Amino acid sequence: MSTAIRIGVAGYGNLGRGVEAAIAKNPDMTLVGVFTRRPPANLAPLRPETPVHSMDALARFTGQLDVLILCGGSKEDLPRQGPELAALFNTVDSFDTHARIPEHFAAVNAPALAHRKTALISAGWDPGLFSVSRVVGEAMLPDGATYTFWGKGLSQGHSDAVRRVPGVAGGVQYTLPVPRSVDQVRRGARPTLTTRQKHTRECFVVLQAGADEEAVRRAIVTMPHYFDEYDTTVHFISADVLRREHGAMPHGGFVIRSGSTAPGAAAESGQIIEYGLNLGSNPEFTASVLVAYARAVHRLHAQGQYGAKTVLDVPPGLLSAKSPEQLRAEQL
Amino acid sequence: MSTAIRIGVAGYGNLGRGVEAAIAKNPDMTLVGVFTRRPPANLAPLRPETPVHSMDALARFTGQLDVLILCGGSKEDLPRQGPELAALFNTVDSFDTHARIPEHFAAVNAPALAHRKTALISAGWDPGLFSVSRVVGEAMLPDGATYTFWGKGLSQGHSDAVRRVPGVAGGVQYTLPVPRSVDQVRRGARPTLTTRQKHTRECFVVLQAGADEEAVRRAIVTMPHYFDEYDTTVHFISADVLRREHGAMPHGGFVIRSGSTAPGAAAESGQIIEYGLNLGSNPEFTASVLVAYARAVHRLHAQGQYGAKTVLDVPPGLLSAKSPEQLRAEQL
Repeated sequence: MSTAIRIGVAGYGNLGRGVEAAIAKNPDMTLVGVFTRRPPANLAPLRPETPVHSMDALARFTGQLDVLILCGGSKEDLPRQGPELAALFNTVDSFDTHARIPEHFAAVNAPALAHRKTALISAGWDPGLFSVSRVVGEAMLPDGATYTFWGKGLSQGHSDAVRRVPGVAGGVQYTLPVPRSVDQVRRGARPTLTTRQKHTRECFVVLQAGADEEAVRRAIVTMPHYFDEYDTTVHFISADVLRREHGAMPHGGFVIRSGSTAPGAAAESGQIIEYGLNLGSNPEFTASVLVAYARAVHRLHAQGQYGAKTVLDVPPGLLSAKSPEQLRAEQL
Repeated sequence: MSTAIRIGVAGYGNLGRGVEAAIAKNPDMTLVGVFTRRPPANLAPLRPETPVHSMDALARFTGQLDVLILCGGSKEDLPRQGPELAALFNTVDSFDTHARIPEHFAAVNAPALAHRKTALISAGWDPGLFSVSRVVGEAMLPDGATYTFWGKGLSQGHSDAVRRVPGVAGGVQYTLPVPRSVDQVRRGARPTLTTRQKHTRECFVVLQAGADEEAVRRAIVTMPHYFDEYDTTVHFISADVLRREHGAMPHGGFVIRSGSTAPGAAAESGQIIEYGLNLGSNPEFTASVLVAYARAVHRLHAQGQYGAKTVLDVPPGLLSAKSPEQLRAEQL
């Protein structure tokens, strides 16, 4: 397929592997290669035909990639790679530190504009598809309130925090929405909810030999920022159960906009918009989102739309492999 | 507010009234006037300050409206008004005859392009927000299936059909999704569903004096196209109950995309995207959608994007009254 969109993947963890899998499901795309900081020979891609290169080789590929998908982390990798690589390639990243998005946008925008590249930041599902839902929901129902609930899902950051507690040999943390609060919102009540009223946290922990259950439990549930504002349940399990039953990375959640369209201040015409995700694999889904946005980036670039972009700048039709005519005839 | 977006409303039924109410909830917009085919003096707008003009006066307002929202019907009004008015104004319509959208697009596109206007067709929730969900869902999960369920909701077309049955003095029809099928889809099963397996129909009917219940029931449930492919329940009620309990126009439904992101053909990593609406008032919500898209049309026009557009061409950020900077900082 000579006109296929040529994709590169920078970084090969769970997300990079997900991108590799997703490209195989999009016949209008081709994977030029995976770029890694590890010795390329040590990396076994999902598909044996996937070329593996050193990250240092990237600059030699400037004419061979339509879009480079950055699969590094938001803490260390993307703040550095984002601006650097947006000078060389059209890029998509999943920068997800919400509070630092304006800063990341500015850092990526300057080199992208200077080198006439298109760089989409903060794609994925939150930020990403959930952001779109929040913005569209508010635009459709300006007189209303927006609620974002997460879960049931495995939280990487909170699982890491649990594993750092002395006496813990292994473990995972799930975030769950509080059903009572979700029901209230779905019924149109528009309550003001505290952190504790929105989510609960559930930990499955393997103890080190000789560790004290009660001390570990207390250390987890009182941990500032991570757990102290939540109702947290800690279950102690064996290493075997952890491996067997908690190896998947499910996640999801929903954005609900609840508003009124009635004339005046009356709340008679209650309107509810709900956007929900129930994900068997968080990294694979996030990767699929990045791949669809890579298609849009390729097209925005062809239109001469340079600089940093976000999901809010992308017309939905550009995400689809189908032509505008086909979409209008079949899916509108 | 000198920079407010100046809106006109062509047609003043339920939808036009909804637009009037919606503009009052969007402080960046101002309603220049309602245009009607009735004698303007006979029309009492929701808000006494709303100016009412004759539809014939529209051509005199070309310099005074940023966007004209067309609130006529898809059968008679929009096929004629759409092309005619797109030569004079930027427009938004809710043309909802899915099969004729390509034709309507072409008819509106030519005059809009010739007169450098922007004309968004087929906005609302289906076509409209549901179309966006179908396209985005398929783009995110190309290996999957899309399901659209409607209801519980009042169907105008089917209610009209019921009221045309001999012996019927009045009545309404509700469309309901079949819970068993919805559950199956939500669990990720991807079944092939017949028309009968997706929706049921429920009618509340007031009989004319002397009419035969069983004959009316049979005439309804066997009606070709409208009811024969569905399981339909008919309830006979009094005129009083009809007026008291069935005067609202609720609607809604959901678009579910169920897919797999797992490498290869395995369906292990089941992923579900669900977009749902639960609407207390269908016309008021549709009107709110048209108003948000009118904002986007005004901006697309300012960018020089002329011609016919659909919801698939509109970046989500353009729907919001907030600036791109504010959206990135607060809602991404």
